[in-house]
Amino acid sequence: MTTDAKPSSRERLLEAAATLTYRDGVGIGVDALCKAAGVSKRSMYQLFASKDELLAASLKERASAYTATLLPAADDNRSPRRRIMHVFDQLESQAGAPDFQGCRYLVVQIELKDQGHPASRVAHRVKENLTGFFRAEAERGGASDPDLLARQLILVFDGASARAGIQADSPTGLIVPTVTTLLDAAGVS
Amino acid sequence: MTTDAKPSSRERLLEAAATLTYRDGVGIGVDALCKAAGVSKRSMYQLFASKDELLAASLKERASAYTATLLPAADDNRSPRRRIMHVFDQLESQAGAPDFQGCRYLVVQIELKDQGHPASRVAHRVKENLTGFFRAEAERGGASDPDLLARQLILVFDGASARAGIQADSPTGLIVPTVTTLLDAAGVS
Repeated sequence: MTTDAKPSSRERLLEAAATLTYRDGVGIGVDALCKAAGVSKRSMYQLFASKDELLAASLKERASAYTATLLPAADDNRSPRRRIMHVFDQLESQAGAPDFQGCRYLVVQIELKDQGHPASRVAHRVKENLTGFFRAEAERGGASDPDLLARQLILVFDGASARAGIQADSPTGLIVPTVTTLLDAAGVS
Repeated sequence: MTTDAKPSSRERLLEAAATLTYRDGVGIGVDALCKAAGVSKRSMYQLFASKDELLAASLKERASAYTATLLPAADDNRSPRRRIMHVFDQLESQAGAPDFQGCRYLVVQIELKDQGHPASRVAHRVKENLTGFFRAEAERGGASDPDLLARQLILVFDGASARAGIQADSPTGLIVPTVTTLLDAAGVS
C-alpha cells in the first residue's frame, strides 16, 4: 500500500510546489505545501531531501511541457522568422491568462537570489535552452550576429513576461513590432 | 530622549528594509528588520502601521535618488536620443555592481504578486515615471509612435535589468545595440 501511494504523493507534492510557489513565491512553507498536497511532512522528506529539492524537481518536471508549448513543432517547416515569432505568439497567449505572473523560470531565479540553488540551476537551463533555440533560428535565418539577436530575443521575452506578470503592460501591440524590428535589423528572413 | 531617537530609528528601519528586502526578498521577517535596525518591534510599530507600510516607505524614500541617478540632469541639453541612452548607460553601470539583483522597483513587484500592496503601488509609480521620461523624449525626438517606443524602452530596461540581476546576461554589448535599433526604427534623432 505504501509503495502504491508513493508515486501519487510525489506527484501531488510536485503539483503543490509548482502551483503554490508560482502563486505565493518561493517563501511558501513546507507545512503549506504538505497540506495542499495532502502529504505528511515525514512522507515529503522521504521523497525529497529538502524543500529546495522539491522545488527544483517541480520545475524540472514541467520544463519539457513548457518548452513544447513555446517552441514550434519539430516538423514545422516555416521560416526561422516565423518560428521565432511563434514563441512570442505563445508568450502573448500565456500572458493573457488571469493568473499569469510572468515566466516561472525567470521569477523563481529573481526570488531565490542564489544562482547555485538547485531550482535556480534548473530554471537557468530552461532559459538557456530557449536562448539556444533563438540562436539556432537566427543562424538559419542568416542573422548578421546570431549571438546578439538571441540575447536580444530572450531579453524581450523576459522583459515582456516580467512586465505582463506585474500588470505593468501587456505584450499585445508591443512584442510583435519589437521582435519585427530586431529581426529586420539583423536581416533575418 | 524618545523624541530625539525617533528620526534615527525611522531612518535605520528604512535603511534595513531597503537593504535586507533587496538582498533577501520581501519575505524578510519583522524580527530580522528590527534586529538589523537596532530598533524594538514596539518602536517599529509606533513608526509604521505594518511591515507593508515600512517597505512602501523605504521604496518611496529612495525613489527620487534612484530617478536622479538614472535620468540626465534637467540642464542636460543633449539630443533626446543621447538623453535616452544616458539612462541605459546608467543601468549598465549599476548592473556591474557585485550585489546587483535587478531593479528593486521591478523585483519587489514580482515578489509581492499583489499590485494593490502599498509597496507595489510605490514601485509601479517609479517605473511609470521612467516610462514617462522615455515617452517625453520620444516625442521630442520625433518618434513615429512615441507610446510604442516608450513601452519598448522600458521593456528593454526591465528585461536587461532582470537578466543581469539573475546573472543570466550582462547589459554590456547588448543594451546599446538594442536601444540603437529601436531608436533608429522609430526615427528618433
